Amino acid sequence: MTYRAPVSDYQFLLNHVVGYDQVSATDRFGEASDDLVSAILAEAGKMTEEIMAPLQRGGDLEPAILENGVVRTSPGFADGWKQIADGGWIGMSAPVDHGGMGLPMTLTTSVNEMMSAACLSLQLAPLMSQGQIEALEHHASAALKDLYLPKLISGEWAGTMNLTEPQAGSDVGALNSKATDNGDGTYAVTGQKIFISWGDNDITENVCHLVLARLPDGVPGTKGISLFLVPKHIPDDDGAPGVANSLKVVSLEHKMGLHGSPTCVMQFDGAKGWLVGKEHGGMAAMFTMMNNARLGVGGQGVGVGEGAYQHALAYALERKQGKTPSGTIVDHADVRRMLMEMKADLFAARAILLACSVAIDMQTATGNAEWSARAAFLTPIAKAFCTDTGIRIAETGVQVHGGMGFIEETGAAQYYRDARVTAIYEGTNGIQSMDLVARKMMDGGDMAHALIDEIEHQAERARTTHPNMAESVWQACESLREATEWVTEQTDMQDRFAGSVPYLKAFARVLGGHYHLTAAMADLGGPREKLARFYINRMLPEHTALLAAATEGAATTFALTLDELAG
Amino acid sequence: MTYRAPVSDYQFLLNHVVGYDQVSATDRFGEASDDLVSAILAEAGKMTEEIMAPLQRGGDLEPAILENGVVRTSPGFADGWKQIADGGWIGMSAPVDHGGMGLPMTLTTSVNEMMSAACLSLQLAPLMSQGQIEALEHHASAALKDLYLPKLISGEWAGTMNLTEPQAGSDVGALNSKATDNGDGTYAVTGQKIFISWGDNDITENVCHLVLARLPDGVPGTKGISLFLVPKHIPDDDGAPGVANSLKVVSLEHKMGLHGSPTCVMQFDGAKGWLVGKEHGGMAAMFTMMNNARLGVGGQGVGVGEGAYQHALAYALERKQGKTPSGTIVDHADVRRMLMEMKADLFAARAILLACSVAIDMQTATGNAEWSARAAFLTPIAKAFCTDTGIRIAETGVQVHGGMGFIEETGAAQYYRDARVTAIYEGTNGIQSMDLVARKMMDGGDMAHALIDEIEHQAERARTTHPNMAESVWQACESLREATEWVTEQTDMQDRFAGSVPYLKAFARVLGGHYHLTAAMADLGGPREKLARFYINRMLPEHTALLAAATEGAATTFALTLDELAG
Repeated sequence: MTYRAPVSDYQFLLNHVVGYDQVSATDRFGEASDDLVSAILAEAGKMTEEIMAPLQRGGDLEPAILENGVVRTSPGFADGWKQIADGGWIGMSAPVDHGGMGLPMTLTTSVNEMMSAACLSLQLAPLMSQGQIEALEHHASAALKDLYLPKLISGEWAGTMNLTEPQAGSDVGALNSKATDNGDGTYAVTGQKIFISWGDNDITENVCHLVLARLPDGVPGTKGISLFLVPKHIPDDDGAPGVANSLKVVSLEHKMGLHGSPTCVMQFDGAKGWLVGKEHGGMAAMFTMMNNARLGVGGQGVGVGEGAYQHALAYALERKQGKTPSGTIVDHADVRRMLMEMKADLFAARAILLACSVAIDMQTATGNAEWSARAAFLTPIAKAFCTDTGIRIAETGVQVHGGMGFIEETGAAQYYRDARVTAIYEGTNGIQSMDLVARKMMDGGDMAHALIDEIEHQAERARTTHPNMAESVWQACESLREATEWVTEQTDMQDRFAGSVPYLKAFARVLGGHYHLTAAMADLGGPREKLARFYINRMLPEHTALLAAATEGAATTFALTLDELAG
Repeated sequence: MTYRAPVSDYQFLLNHVVGYDQVSATDRFGEASDDLVSAILAEAGKMTEEIMAPLQRGGDLEPAILENGVVRTSPGFADGWKQIADGGWIGMSAPVDHGGMGLPMTLTTSVNEMMSAACLSLQLAPLMSQGQIEALEHHASAALKDLYLPKLISGEWAGTMNLTEPQAGSDVGALNSKATDNGDGTYAVTGQKIFISWGDNDITENVCHLVLARLPDGVPGTKGISLFLVPKHIPDDDGAPGVANSLKVVSLEHKMGLHGSPTCVMQFDGAKGWLVGKEHGGMAAMFTMMNNARLGVGGQGVGVGEGAYQHALAYALERKQGKTPSGTIVDHADVRRMLMEMKADLFAARAILLACSVAIDMQTATGNAEWSARAAFLTPIAKAFCTDTGIRIAETGVQVHGGMGFIEETGAAQYYRDARVTAIYEGTNGIQSMDLVARKMMDGGDMAHALIDEIEHQAERARTTHPNMAESVWQACESLREATEWVTEQTDMQDRFAGSVPYLKAFARVLGGHYHLTAAMADLGGPREKLARFYINRMLPEHTALLAAATEGAATTFALTLDELAG
């Protein structure tokens, strides 16, 4: 696959749309100036184009396999991982004192998106390590940090997340894995975990599992869960990988896509582990990792969408069919319509992703509760909207290819198959939407209203240069405000949940309009203004239908009995 | 896979929603009374549940392969085909005097949908034969009909369509295949065809190809194309399959889904063929076959949607997760929301499919131009909306399964992969929408307005029993009327085409509201009234966004230069 990293899109968004200047103005991230950002984006672009993109098809055609209990990764993945690691891309935002670069999450997010676009299956590996690094940084003991962080940041070792069990998916509190205190500062962890992405590999010299399990005195549910770091090889006194731990890969899943990423069933049989965070405090540590991963998966959605868009555009520019000015299908109105929808949605999704990243960085840099609330509010929106968008773009990409889209050789189908999991893992998009309308709006929706106010203020400012677009965004935002009031008034959570997915989508649609409008103001007469017009006139109107569904309540949704549902 | 044919849904739609009583009141179809319809649907239900559904997974896991030039079909498909053939299901609507049953297309459509739900890959084979039977019936010589129709109807032989060439997909007029007159009433056909569904098999004793090719004096473009019947084995004097013709399967495509259906590259090297229709009149004959196939593919969309819905519902009823009244995820509001959307859209799509079928039958029975125009108008809507709906339902079905949806063993992923092609083949859904706003509205949109009037009259009638729902449908229809006027006023076709896909979708959304409202009136207080309320309150509002896009014109869509599109 060829892939061209959209470096200038990032620069435009950072400089003119999502307020990255606030991040570089902080003491914490003062070094991440425009020049450094440009240099890093350019370097990451080069790496993803030259090293990762060529691995994309091989990962699909020659999936990871389990051989004598060891995962054998797809051709070239080992070298790809090493190049990612050696470039420092795993630990971009990791602490400097353990070998990381301490750069803003906004930059990591940008680079992660590029890596996802180039080769999603391989990118998932460093993403898992990044989540583990952040969890350890915030919750592990100094000794664990000193031992593990440098290895994870350098990519000598890799990290995984072990949450799910057959009976405990979205309901993580239902897990059965157990841990007992060995009395020597370590614990014995026993249980089976499923859907463990990159649960093993033949690339790194160690694989470090963060495993949720229950201590004997742990209460049922999430409050009785603890988090353990369980390495594949137990480090010896020098910190080198020593004897094998009591854990193994039972099997690999046969998945619809993402074939290059080994999805493991893991068995822990009294495996030696170290407590991360407090006893029974596992969920707090896990949430650190999960929030990181949710933003990361949002970035995967944008990345796979970008890859699919570029692939479809290249086909449209080359495929001759019918009489058009260029001689190719790119001039057919419906093909152009598809490409414009893809591009406009990519812009909206990427802007939301980066706005969320900026909030995370500002939270890190300032400790300000407002930034923290903003990051918390935007995370489920970024995860769900960016992945839904990636999937839709991949689907449209197949359609642009016509009959060739259904043939595997063209590669369009791979984006479609790979992308689908992003709406499912790290909390399904349904779970994200429930998180948004419940936990993230428990306070009466303060952050929702703060964002709505901000959007309307910006629309007011835009009335001079873009009266029509400004009015559309303002009106959409006003409808969102009414719907938000309706949502926060509902005391029966089922009424919120029955409309939570459309509510989240509508919020994202309006945010997308806001960022497009902001872009138009910064690019008068330019291509981003034209793209904004397409989005605002043709795609933003979707919010009305979404808000109608969002505020319908649960009665119509639950109107049919189970027999009637089946009848 | 288990599958339960939705026989009662068909009966309800036929009796209360799509006016099947008009069909059974004609002389032509007078025998197809309610009792016969019920008996046939029940029998087809049994066959699809018991014979075809068990073949679904095997077709995916053990695709058809090419072995020494012969296609070896998936396990059990040969027996499945024989049971379909022996049951008379191939020739349900075929002429009685050649062994068919002469039943309404409405019934064939219903049974085809059931077969699609049970095993889409296998169902495509009889669907291809049905299209060929109809084309021969209307365009072939008496001698060809007498020889081929009985064999095709009995399923001893199978039929295929050979249109596409590498450089001639949507632009079929660009084809290069050639034919020359052998001087003995036969022709020599030479050329390569791609994407030939069921281009060969090891089940039937002969495979009959309808091939588009150009005679030496054929003008460029579609007006110079002729249609030839080219059998794999040339019939001997007794009509038995004789010597092999000069044609072969070059290769099979490696597709994202529909693995059980062999998609062939076919090579014809001076193969002996017989003219069907007039010289240079191939497109007329091909359109007969294509219109049949477009309705058929619409039925595939509904079928695969039904299969995916049943599969997802079964999972939701069985999967324990979280605290709910039933203990399973079916009581989670967002899961219920997904299931309701699937069911409500299935109803709308099936109603549109059957309404189109009824129009075709009334055209056949009465020869009335109004019915003919209605069938012509509804066909692209049925094809595109039913397949889009099938794809969306299959996608939602994956999501209902959560993590298991991405694992191939559950079967949810297969529906998702299989369904995707239905939006592409037999004319992409983009092509369908262009057909709708151009050819089917060339007369100023008379049929669109006739349907709109009909919907509004019905909404007026519904005001007594369902004032809110009636008002929603009426208002939506009025918006559709305004948009329709806008579309027919556009003289630059690019302005129509840039909004043709959303226009078609909006028309289908409103038609869906109409049929749901009609169902509600016939099922006061019953489950179909409740389903109608869900659709009209939560899904019909989508029409506003679609119509905004439909009437935006081409300027915004073409605003970016090709460089800007890539930049």
